[in-house]
Amino acid sequence: MKTTVIKRATFSAGHRLFNPRFDEKKNLEVFGACSNPNYHGHNYILEVHVTGPVDSQTGMVMNLKAIKSVIEDEIVSKGDHRNLNIDVDFMSDIIPTTENLASRIFGILDQKIGTGLLSKVVLWESDNNRVEITREKGGGI
Amino acid sequence: MKTTVIKRATFSAGHRLFNPRFDEKKNLEVFGACSNPNYHGHNYILEVHVTGPVDSQTGMVMNLKAIKSVIEDEIVSKGDHRNLNIDVDFMSDIIPTTENLASRIFGILDQKIGTGLLSKVVLWESDNNRVEITREKGGGI
Amino acid sequence: MKTTVIKRATFSAGHRLFNPRFDEKKNLEVFGACSNPNYHGHNYILEVHVTGPVDSQTGMVMNLKAIKSVIEDEIVSKGDHRNLNIDVDFMSDIIPTTENLASRIFGILDQKIGTGLLSKVVLWESDNNRVEITREKGGGI
Amino acid sequence: MKTTVIKRATFSAGHRLFNPRFDEKKNLEVFGACSNPNYHGHNYILEVHVTGPVDSQTGMVMNLKAIKSVIEDEIVSKGDHRNLNIDVDFMSDIIPTTENLASRIFGILDQKIGTGLLSKVVLWESDNNRVEITREKGGGI
Amino acid sequence: MKTTVIKRATFSAGHRLFNPRFDEKKNLEVFGACSNPNYHGHNYILEVHVTGPVDSQTGMVMNLKAIKSVIEDEIVSKGDHRNLNIDVDFMSDIIPTTENLASRIFGILDQKIGTGLLSKVVLWESDNNRVEITREKGGGI
Amino acid sequence: MKTTVIKRATFSAGHRLFNPRFDEKKNLEVFGACSNPNYHGHNYILEVHVTGPVDSQTGMVMNLKAIKSVIEDEIVSKGDHRNLNIDVDFMSDIIPTTENLASRIFGILDQKIGTGLLSKVVLWESDNNRVEITREKGGGI
Repeated sequence: MKTTVIKRATFSAGHRLFNPRFDEKKNLEVFGACSNPNYHGHNYILEVHVTGPVDSQTGMVMNLKAIKSVIEDEIVSKGDHRNLNIDVDFMSDIIPTTENLASRIFGILDQKIGTGLLSKVVLWESDNNRVEITREKGGGI
Repeated sequence: MKTTVIKRATFSAGHRLFNPRFDEKKNLEVFGACSNPNYHGHNYILEVHVTGPVDSQTGMVMNLKAIKSVIEDEIVSKGDHRNLNIDVDFMSDIIPTTENLASRIFGILDQKIGTGLLSKVVLWESDNNRVEITREKGGGI
Repeated sequence: MKTTVIKRATFSAGHRLFNPRFDEKKNLEVFGACSNPNYHGHNYILEVHVTGPVDSQTGMVMNLKAIKSVIEDEIVSKGDHRNLNIDVDFMSDIIPTTENLASRIFGILDQKIGTGLLSKVVLWESDNNRVEITREKGGGI
Repeated sequence: MKTTVIKRATFSAGHRLFNPRFDEKKNLEVFGACSNPNYHGHNYILEVHVTGPVDSQTGMVMNLKAIKSVIEDEIVSKGDHRNLNIDVDFMSDIIPTTENLASRIFGILDQKIGTGLLSKVVLWESDNNRVEITREKGGGI
Repeated sequence: MKTTVIKRATFSAGHRLFNPRFDEKKNLEVFGACSNPNYHGHNYILEVHVTGPVDSQTGMVMNLKAIKSVIEDEIVSKGDHRNLNIDVDFMSDIIPTTENLASRIFGILDQKIGTGLLSKVVLWESDNNRVEITREKGGGI
Repeated sequence: MKTTVIKRATFSAGHRLFNPRFDEKKNLEVFGACSNPNYHGHNYILEVHVTGPVDSQTGMVMNLKAIKSVIEDEIVSKGDHRNLNIDVDFMSDIIPTTENLASRIFGILDQKIGTGLLSKVVLWESDNNRVEITREKGGGI
């Protein structure tokens, strides 16, 4: 059996989807209303999956308080009530699609949690749209 | 018995809470992270309550398709993927708190639906924060 | 203070919205796809509100097990996995809109619960559409 | 129009429903499995409704941060991960039904929020069971 | 890392579970109330998972608008407010269990989306019952 | 394609996280408020995943009524409104963390369902905390 413990957190942020290498018409075609110049935003829901052996002394894979702290310190405190295009260092060089945001979050949390325990990150942009980043078996990231 | 039919809709928008008559310190004190200058945003959920007699020929208070059209035309098409401080005419002169946004939505929908049928508007800014605007009994708005 | 205890239940049923006094075109205009002749269906969520004094010996307005039994016996066992147009006696003479279904449920439960304790019935047809039937103050139903 | 701002919070607690003036058989009859002697528990969801005029300078009825603080200090910090029958002072003399718990929470929050602004407290014990305490019009509590 | 983008949609449909090769007693034994002859129905929730590389120009696996269009054109417009036993071509030769409905939806969407990007289809019949169809690794469907 | 049918159920239980081999300070450090001596509790949500071939006569992987019965008989009737540390035989020798509870549930259900059909158990302790136990490919449990 494989055991995974999962912690959910939320943050609200502004963003705009826009590729400076595209002209205005192409941006509108690809990103639609998401490219509106004055920014809009979302309530993001983030789910962090940590997979590993259960410690027999604590009955835990990893303490949920520790997972919560890492999420708070590395992601929520940097992204909540911020503009992803302007205010968030780890998104400054990339289009803030849910795919890219989830991928960067995976990279940051994977470094902090360490030893390959992070198995998946799920990010909801809305009730109907979400992205999952999953570690491939038998490999790094 | 009183019969109320309720329609739910969603839209995502950016905003910033800020009173130009307050100095920076006062804005931060009152609005906290909501006053961050580069905007953030939310997935808003809007609920529109229409109260009235049930038509015996249709079995309806008001056709849900008609309520949906009014919400779409008057609110969602104007606010979705927009910045409430900059892009939305009916919010241009007021701080975009959930209270003020819900109140303006009530006023607009009340005019369009007419004959005092609109009884309540509920607006969620997040799972944990929402505002309800209710028509007072025996009066106008 | 007024105390209300609320019980939620669910049932799934088929229906078709159709007024035999309307011609086909008028039915389609009023009821749209809901008038499709071969029936469709919904997962209904029912919420029953009982308002009254709290018994000092039990700390309850009314025992939730009793409310659950009434809902089960009078509504769920008669409507669940049934066709509202054909199989459900209390809907046989009326168009099965959510308004009419909620109203009939209010009438049935009000008789069974008695002494005017039933204060509201809420019925969801879908996440975005629901109806509330509320007892008017100072009157019967 | 009447404006209400609503804040949601959660806490998890243990309890047992039991009236020492009832014998064992009567306790089982009234409270069922809820009277099991070794305690069980729930994830409670609490909703606090504050109704009043909107301040034109802030666009708020009452600052959500202030409502959150009162809920945290007066309710969550005293009830979360506690046993309602043993550990929580404001429940020590009463059967911890959802009705009684919601009523005591209303009383505590009403004193702290003051000036009659608290209009309703809603308390979920589970997805299917909840209680609402509403201030009666034109009166105190 | 593997990136999956997920789109959710809903539709309401009627159905009846019934195998003409079973006699009435066997149908009742296997399908219970789901075999009631006059049909009942559900609000189905459909989730479509698309897994593939992220395009560096758009920051997307596949444009959510395109996924939404395929779901709308191929599934929702054909199944919503329809009877799965009678009105829906792609279900005409098979018992409309959630397993079979989800499997047919997987087959249709897999052809339309192409190049093996569709990785999973999830279909809820109710809050408590759902089916997942997952592409096996290293193979076709 | 791989087909999985999933059934959800709920139960409410009390517990306390505590390792008798740790001293009081260590218990508090590891388990925090979860180690409070008088117990607290949760509304647990349990999801049971059964993966296998679809029977062509029934259109089912396994009858949901049978899965529901097993969950009810083996888990809910033994854990609901009980104290996991005191009343539940299958948890009597282990710290009742969500990891351990989910793992024991997997073991019990796997024996009852048989032939390796049980593929996953998911257990929510709260909206934000859950555990998944997944069968490893190509092996037993």
